[in-house]
Amino acid sequence: MKSDLPSLMQARNLDALLILGDALHNSSMVYFTGVAHVTDAALVVKRGQAPLLFCHNMERDEAATTGLKTRSITDYNYMGIYEKSGKDPLRAGARLYQLMLTDAGLTSGKVAVYGQRDAGETFGLLSGLQELMPNIEFVGEYADSVLLQARATKDPAEIERLRHTLRQTTEVVAQVADHLSRLKAKDGLLVDSDGRPFTVAKVKSMINLWLAERGLDNPHGTIFAPGAEGGVPHSMGSPDAPIRLGEPVVFDIFPVEEGGGYFADFTRTWCFGHASEPAQKLYDDVRFVYETIMSELRLDTLCSDYQNRTCELFEQRGHPTVRQDPTTKNGYVHGLAHGLGLDVHERPNFGRNATAEDLLRAGSVVTIEPGLYYPERGLGMRIEDAVYMRPDGKAEILAPYPLDLVIPLKS
Amino acid sequence: MKSDLPSLMQARNLDALLILGDALHNSSMVYFTGVAHVTDAALVVKRGQAPLLFCHNMERDEAATTGLKTRSITDYNYMGIYEKSGKDPLRAGARLYQLMLTDAGLTSGKVAVYGQRDAGETFGLLSGLQELMPNIEFVGEYADSVLLQARATKDPAEIERLRHTLRQTTEVVAQVADHLSRLKAKDGLLVDSDGRPFTVAKVKSMINLWLAERGLDNPHGTIFAPGAEGGVPHSMGSPDAPIRLGEPVVFDIFPVEEGGGYFADFTRTWCFGHASEPAQKLYDDVRFVYETIMSELRLDTLCSDYQNRTCELFEQRGHPTVRQDPTTKNGYVHGLAHGLGLDVHERPNFGRNATAEDLLRAGSVVTIEPGLYYPERGLGMRIEDAVYMRPDGKAEILAPYPLDLVIPLKS
Repeated sequence: MKSDLPSLMQARNLDALLILGDALHNSSMVYFTGVAHVTDAALVVKRGQAPLLFCHNMERDEAATTGLKTRSITDYNYMGIYEKSGKDPLRAGARLYQLMLTDAGLTSGKVAVYGQRDAGETFGLLSGLQELMPNIEFVGEYADSVLLQARATKDPAEIERLRHTLRQTTEVVAQVADHLSRLKAKDGLLVDSDGRPFTVAKVKSMINLWLAERGLDNPHGTIFAPGAEGGVPHSMGSPDAPIRLGEPVVFDIFPVEEGGGYFADFTRTWCFGHASEPAQKLYDDVRFVYETIMSELRLDTLCSDYQNRTCELFEQRGHPTVRQDPTTKNGYVHGLAHGLGLDVHERPNFGRNATAEDLLRAGSVVTIEPGLYYPERGLGMRIEDAVYMRPDGKAEILAPYPLDLVIPLKS
Repeated sequence: MKSDLPSLMQARNLDALLILGDALHNSSMVYFTGVAHVTDAALVVKRGQAPLLFCHNMERDEAATTGLKTRSITDYNYMGIYEKSGKDPLRAGARLYQLMLTDAGLTSGKVAVYGQRDAGETFGLLSGLQELMPNIEFVGEYADSVLLQARATKDPAEIERLRHTLRQTTEVVAQVADHLSRLKAKDGLLVDSDGRPFTVAKVKSMINLWLAERGLDNPHGTIFAPGAEGGVPHSMGSPDAPIRLGEPVVFDIFPVEEGGGYFADFTRTWCFGHASEPAQKLYDDVRFVYETIMSELRLDTLCSDYQNRTCELFEQRGHPTVRQDPTTKNGYVHGLAHGLGLDVHERPNFGRNATAEDLLRAGSVVTIEPGLYYPERGLGMRIEDAVYMRPDGKAEILAPYPLDLVIPLKS
């Protein structure tokens, strides 16, 4: 939680965080600012002190909505700095940041940098700034940053926002199920009122509308992947693909609060009308593993143990797993789970990057998403729910929704 | 244009570009890949050669839609690398990239880095990679990168995509005008059928729906800022704000193709029912400057000259400008224009960052957006259209739309 930051920073001897970029779709910034229309900003978080937000004059009112102490970048008169820097934008940019950090009282110590921003510009800027400020050590934490560690557990207000996004998402999922169940079937395909095949593109366009009605953004799109496409975990589903009766469709949806706040992440696999026998068999295995793992979640246990356990359970049922071959494309091919919050994938890690610090703790919110994939047999199957590890030890599904494989047709 | 890249790279002695991140909402990557659900990827563009895309196995089908040559990151067996790197994720990440670049035939020379990605992670990764590959000089180009230079002029296919996004956007603008013009007025406010004030939040929720219907994303939100809020250029408009008859509302809308392709950027300022006298006066000045500048746009002229000319015209009409005082909050307070493409703001620059290379060229697409701001008087006014500089020298507005200030009420 955010309240853990000072001690996490202390443990790594970090004096400050410097967070760059917008306060939109930029999780490190939004963690402190909330979603705000503040662009190309800089936030200085000194250990144990209130954050200071640098923003442009044009966005001063938006910056004020963050409730943070703010300073104007515009007041530094960039044009004057630019002229004095021989009209070299990199030197001018570095000099501007030197002045800003100095005014923030940051002239020495260890400073970790964050924020979604162009990789090259930032590399240039930080390299230039490092030369101008030799008493500061700028560090780029990789994968296990203090910010991701803090964010790995959520406070009650964050839980409520995640719950809200997830509930809104399952409402849309229910709308999709209802709409598709009312379609007619013809020659083994779902068809619209004109008798034409109902396509993946149509489903996605309805999903985007229904998400927009609820004030959710969908920056990464939606997976609605029938048949063989569902056999590759991140295949999105071809726009023109039809929906066949009996064939599994992997429906994985991960929208976010407007402007880039807290994410949902939710998957069901559906067969319309009926399930083919191989689909049903695969479903039974995935559901068994899903329910077994759900029943075994405990506080203060290693995330990697659940990945191992999932591999064990799938292997017992005769499926190849990533534990046996990290490059396998058949069977169980990915990680069981991931943290969910201001990024759709965040700590704790369950897969290849999991460390001894990746534990289920009170306040963890993680997906649980076992799946099986046989692309050459035209089959993919995944079930995913988001779970909140409550302080009382209970693993609570934040937005419960039926697990059914078959969506019966109503007509 | 993309075809200029080899010579632009040659001029800076760049042997390759390394582009990091997703193929969604990541302009540098999307320039080569198109919008594709490929995440955490790496693209190597060697000078004069076809790009090579590194992606994860789970996204191989999505990567194939880019039409580019691809390689699997998964096949490098990160877990093995991680173990050999003493379970240090930064060392493992740098080593993984060293292997990938080596396989791409990139072991020496000058390499510019791009892509939306976490600033700190990338700084760490590149610093680590630089140590492992001392024969490569990794550079972070700042502001005037070769990629932004190439993107500063558009080819015909890009023009058509920009035109399409802009036309879809003006259709939504027309829907908003039509909907609001049919509302009733009560006590000087627009009201809905229940007699309650129609708020900015309701307008924005309609806008998001109508954008979603057209397959457009709206990652940065919409400015719909009445009265004093419109007096600060980037104020978005408070959700609960009502819409007063006669009071100007700045409506600035900048959606993008689904997944983050080409942007629109479009502004009108509207008064419902009638315009107050101060609003009309301000509008007349802004419209005069808009039309004067539009009539003066010529190929192969310096962008900064138009910014100067705009200041001159506004000053002649008695308005303070950023030319007189770069920190002014009254009068003309921003740049006239910016390039428009895969980012909502890109080269050429017109404002503080404009250089001798910022020219209007055949293939430039730029906004023209003069505005005046008097926040203490509750007034803001801006008109913005996107202009394509055609090879025949004509400045073509890509999606013409009426400039009217007053939206008469129909009831």
